[in-house]
Amino acid sequence: MELIAAIQANTAITIGLIFGLAALGTAIGFGLLGGKFLEGAARQPEMANMLQTRMFIIAGLLDAIAIIGVAMGLLMMFANPLLAALQPAG
Amino acid sequence: MELIAAIQANTAITIGLIFGLAALGTAIGFGLLGGKFLEGAARQPEMANMLQTRMFIIAGLLDAIAIIGVAMGLLMMFANPLLAALQPAG
Amino acid sequence: MELIAAIQANTAITIGLIFGLAALGTAIGFGLLGGKFLEGAARQPEMANMLQTRMFIIAGLLDAIAIIGVAMGLLMMFANPLLAALQPAG
Amino acid sequence: MELIAAIQANTAITIGLIFGLAALGTAIGFGLLGGKFLEGAARQPEMANMLQTRMFIIAGLLDAIAIIGVAMGLLMMFANPLLAALQPAG
Amino acid sequence: MELIAAIQANTAITIGLIFGLAALGTAIGFGLLGGKFLEGAARQPEMANMLQTRMFIIAGLLDAIAIIGVAMGLLMMFANPLLAALQPAG
Amino acid sequence: MELIAAIQANTAITIGLIFGLAALGTAIGFGLLGGKFLEGAARQPEMANMLQTRMFIIAGLLDAIAIIGVAMGLLMMFANPLLAALQPAG
Amino acid sequence: MELIAAIQANTAITIGLIFGLAALGTAIGFGLLGGKFLEGAARQPEMANMLQTRMFIIAGLLDAIAIIGVAMGLLMMFANPLLAALQPAG
Amino acid sequence: MELIAAIQANTAITIGLIFGLAALGTAIGFGLLGGKFLEGAARQPEMANMLQTRMFIIAGLLDAIAIIGVAMGLLMMFANPLLAALQPAG
Amino acid sequence: MELIAAIQANTAITIGLIFGLAALGTAIGFGLLGGKFLEGAARQPEMANMLQTRMFIIAGLLDAIAIIGVAMGLLMMFANPLLAALQPAG
Amino acid sequence: MELIAAIQANTAITIGLIFGLAALGTAIGFGLLGGKFLEGAARQPEMANMLQTRMFIIAGLLDAIAIIGVAMGLLMMFANPLLAALQPAG
Amino acid sequence: MELIAAIQANTAITIGLIFGLAALGTAIGFGLLGGKFLEGAARQPEMANMLQTRMFIIAGLLDAIAIIGVAMGLLMMFANPLLAALQPAG
Amino acid sequence: MELIAAIQANTAITIGLIFGLAALGTAIGFGLLGGKFLEGAARQPEMANMLQTRMFIIAGLLDAIAIIGVAMGLLMMFANPLLAALQPAG
Amino acid sequence: MELIAAIQANTAITIGLIFGLAALGTAIGFGLLGGKFLEGAARQPEMANMLQTRMFIIAGLLDAIAIIGVAMGLLMMFANPLLAALQPAG
Amino acid sequence: MELIAAIQANTAITIGLIFGLAALGTAIGFGLLGGKFLEGAARQPEMANMLQTRMFIIAGLLDAIAIIGVAMGLLMMFANPLLAALQPAG
Repeated sequence: MELIAAIQANTAITIGLIFGLAALGTAIGFGLLGGKFLEGAARQPEMANMLQTRMFIIAGLLDAIAIIGVAMGLLMMFANPLLAALQPAG
Repeated sequence: MELIAAIQANTAITIGLIFGLAALGTAIGFGLLGGKFLEGAARQPEMANMLQTRMFIIAGLLDAIAIIGVAMGLLMMFANPLLAALQPAG
Repeated sequence: MELIAAIQANTAITIGLIFGLAALGTAIGFGLLGGKFLEGAARQPEMANMLQTRMFIIAGLLDAIAIIGVAMGLLMMFANPLLAALQPAG
Repeated sequence: MELIAAIQANTAITIGLIFGLAALGTAIGFGLLGGKFLEGAARQPEMANMLQTRMFIIAGLLDAIAIIGVAMGLLMMFANPLLAALQPAG
Repeated sequence: MELIAAIQANTAITIGLIFGLAALGTAIGFGLLGGKFLEGAARQPEMANMLQTRMFIIAGLLDAIAIIGVAMGLLMMFANPLLAALQPAG
Repeated sequence: MELIAAIQANTAITIGLIFGLAALGTAIGFGLLGGKFLEGAARQPEMANMLQTRMFIIAGLLDAIAIIGVAMGLLMMFANPLLAALQPAG
Repeated sequence: MELIAAIQANTAITIGLIFGLAALGTAIGFGLLGGKFLEGAARQPEMANMLQTRMFIIAGLLDAIAIIGVAMGLLMMFANPLLAALQPAG
Repeated sequence: MELIAAIQANTAITIGLIFGLAALGTAIGFGLLGGKFLEGAARQPEMANMLQTRMFIIAGLLDAIAIIGVAMGLLMMFANPLLAALQPAG
Repeated sequence: MELIAAIQANTAITIGLIFGLAALGTAIGFGLLGGKFLEGAARQPEMANMLQTRMFIIAGLLDAIAIIGVAMGLLMMFANPLLAALQPAG
Repeated sequence: MELIAAIQANTAITIGLIFGLAALGTAIGFGLLGGKFLEGAARQPEMANMLQTRMFIIAGLLDAIAIIGVAMGLLMMFANPLLAALQPAG
Repeated sequence: MELIAAIQANTAITIGLIFGLAALGTAIGFGLLGGKFLEGAARQPEMANMLQTRMFIIAGLLDAIAIIGVAMGLLMMFANPLLAALQPAG
Repeated sequence: MELIAAIQANTAITIGLIFGLAALGTAIGFGLLGGKFLEGAARQPEMANMLQTRMFIIAGLLDAIAIIGVAMGLLMMFANPLLAALQPAG
Repeated sequence: MELIAAIQANTAITIGLIFGLAALGTAIGFGLLGGKFLEGAARQPEMANMLQTRMFIIAGLLDAIAIIGVAMGLLMMFANPLLAALQPAG
Repeated sequence: MELIAAIQANTAITIGLIFGLAALGTAIGFGLLGGKFLEGAARQPEMANMLQTRMFIIAGLLDAIAIIGVAMGLLMMFANPLLAALQPAG
């Protein structure tokens, strides 16, 4: 039990790093990307739909690693795979 | 009980990292994004509604990871899933 | 009691991180956003009301995560949900 | 008593983080905002009153989180709610 | 007595953080703000009084949180409210 | 078992570093890249498809190391190869 | 005596933080402010006296928090009010 | 066994540093490089193929050290050569 | 004696912080200020004396806090007032 | 054996520093260099081959220290020369 | 003797901070200042002597705090005044 | 032997600092230098050979300290001169 | 002897700080200064000698503190004056 | 012997700081300086020799402190003068 607790306590810090840095990064990234999109849409409103479609593609790429990180963070929260190594004697 | 307390104490730091970095990131991100929006709306007021609609879409993307982080922070606060690994002997 | 005190002591640091980073972020974010608003309003005073309305919408988005963080900080101050895990034997 | 002192000692650091970062953030934020206001007022003096009114609204938003942090810092100083968890046996 | 000393020692660090960061922030903030003011006053000397009046209003806002922090730092120096929690057995 | 736990606890920090820094990096990288793409697409809409195809190639390169890192993070989570060195006596 | 020494030792670090950060901040702040003043005075020498008067007002505001910090640092050096809490049993 | 575990635990941190910094660096590097490529391709679409070929050469150079780092990270994960020094008595 | 030595050892660090940061700050501050002065003097040599007089006033303000810090550092070096609190039993 | 393990554990951190910083540096360096190359090649396509040849020379210089670092990292991984000092009594 | 050694050891770090930061600051400060001087002298060679005289005055101010720090560092090296507090019982 | 191991373990960190920082520095330095070279060669292709010769001279200077560092790092790896001080009693 | 060794060990770190920061500072400072000099010499070659003479004066000022630091570092290396305080009982 | 080893171990860190920071600084400094030189040589090729001569003088100044640091690092590596203080009883 002590071993499980030690791993879970470090996992808590891990989750904080993943969620915190991912939220910081995507917020700044979308701030840069969205500013360029609004600039383009304001200058040529007839192309706003085309630009928006394309922005969604970039948004998907931009979010990809962060979303994977989030999913892994959730997995570690609910069913920490790092604990599996302790199971025979767990 | 000691094990639970050790995990909960580290979880407190986790929550501080998530909320603090997410608030910092979204505040700066919306500062950049909103500044571009107001600039565009001031230059072409007849397109302000269109730009605002599109900004909401970006805002949703910008907030997404942060909101997930917030939700997970709340979950860890009220029903910390990291404690489940200790339950058989908890 | 010792366990409760250990969690409460770390919670104090958590609250400092949340309030401090959120105040830093929103202050800088509104500094950027408000500067653009005043610029726009000074250049086209007849649109100042429209711009102000729209700025309030962005302000709501900008503050959102910070306000949630503040609310959670208050909750942890007055009724720390992290202590609930200790209650059966508390 | 030892437990109360441990929480109070960490609370002192918390208060330093909140007041210090909030003062740093608002000072820089108002430096950016006020510079834009004076620029606008110098260029169009007839609109200075209108701009000032609007600047007050932004100032309220800019200060909001910092003021909440200050209020919470004061609360923790005079009647630390984190100690309530220790009261049954305090 | 040992408990009081532990809290007072941490309070000393708190005061250093508050005064140091507040002085750093306001000095940089007024450097930015005052530079814009002198620029405006040099370009339109007939408006210098009006600009100065308005700058005082901003200065009040800019200093507000720092002054509150200073006042609280003084309070903690002379009559540390964090010690009150120890008084029944002090 | 203690040895396995010590490695798993450090592995948790490793995963946090990999996911956090990779998410931060790709988000900022795509923010820079996507902004240039939208700028180009807004200026010459008839070339948007060509530019988008080419951007996907860069996106693949940009993501490559991060994706490898993510894959290795997952591997370490589910079947930590660092533990293999302990298996004869595990 | 040991308790007094512990508080005095931390107070030494406090004084270093206050004086160091305040000197750093005011030096950079006056570097920015004075540069703008000399620029204005070189361009319109007939207004140099008016600008200088106004600069003194800003300088007063810029120095205010730093001077308060300095005064408090001196107070802590010569008659540390944090020691008063130990006096009944000093 | 304890010695192997100590080396493996530090190796976990090593892998986190390599993958994290390499992913951060290549993402930012390709963000800078790809932005220039899209800019060039948008301005002279008839040269996009030539530019893309050349960009691949730079991409190879840009990735080279990171890929070597990744390969070494993988090697350390699956067959840590640092353990070989312990084998006679392993 | 042990108590005096503990305070003196921390005081050494204090002096290093004060002198180091003050020297760093004033050097950068005068670099900015003097650059502007030479620029102005080179453009209008007939006003160089007037500008120089005014620069001395700013220099006085710029140096003020640093000089006070230096004086206090000297005081702490030669007759550390923090030791006075130990004198009754010194 | 304990001595060998202590050196090998620190060597692991060394390898992480070398590979991580080298990958970060070369990625950013080639991002800057390649961007200039593509810019030049897009503006004067008839000189792209000449520029590319020259860029390879710079690339060799740019990579040189990093490659040496990588080679030394590999050497330390497979046959750590730092262990030779322990061999007489190893 | 142990007490003297403890103070001297911390004094060594103090001297490193003072000399290191002062050398860093003055080098960067003179880099900025001297660049402006050469620029002015190249543009108006007939005024180079006047500018040089004035630059020496600024150089004196720029170096002042650093030189005081150097003098104090020398004093602490050769006759550390912090040791005087230990002399009665030395 | 323990003493040798302690020195060798710290030497490992030393080597990591030297190789890592040197690789980071030269990569960024050549990125800046090579970009200027390619710019010049693209603008005046007939002078590319002359510029390249001169760039090699700068490259030699730029690399000099880094190469010395590398050589010393290699020396410390294979025949650590710091161990010589222990040899009489080694 | 133990006391001497403790002071000498800290002195080693001191020397590293002085030499490292001084080399970093002067290298960057001369990079800024020399760039301006070459710019001026390239634009007006007939004044290159005059500019060079003047640059030497600035170089003297720029190097002054660093050279003093170097001299003091050498002094501490060969005849550490901090040890003098231990000599009566050395 | 233990005392010698303690000094040598700290000296290893010292050497890492000196070589690492010096290599970082000179690489960036020559990157800035060399870029200006190539720019000037490309614009006025007939003056390239004169500029190169002058650049060597600056290079000498730029490298001076770093070379001294390198020489001292070598001295400390091969015949550490800090050990002389231990020789009477070595």
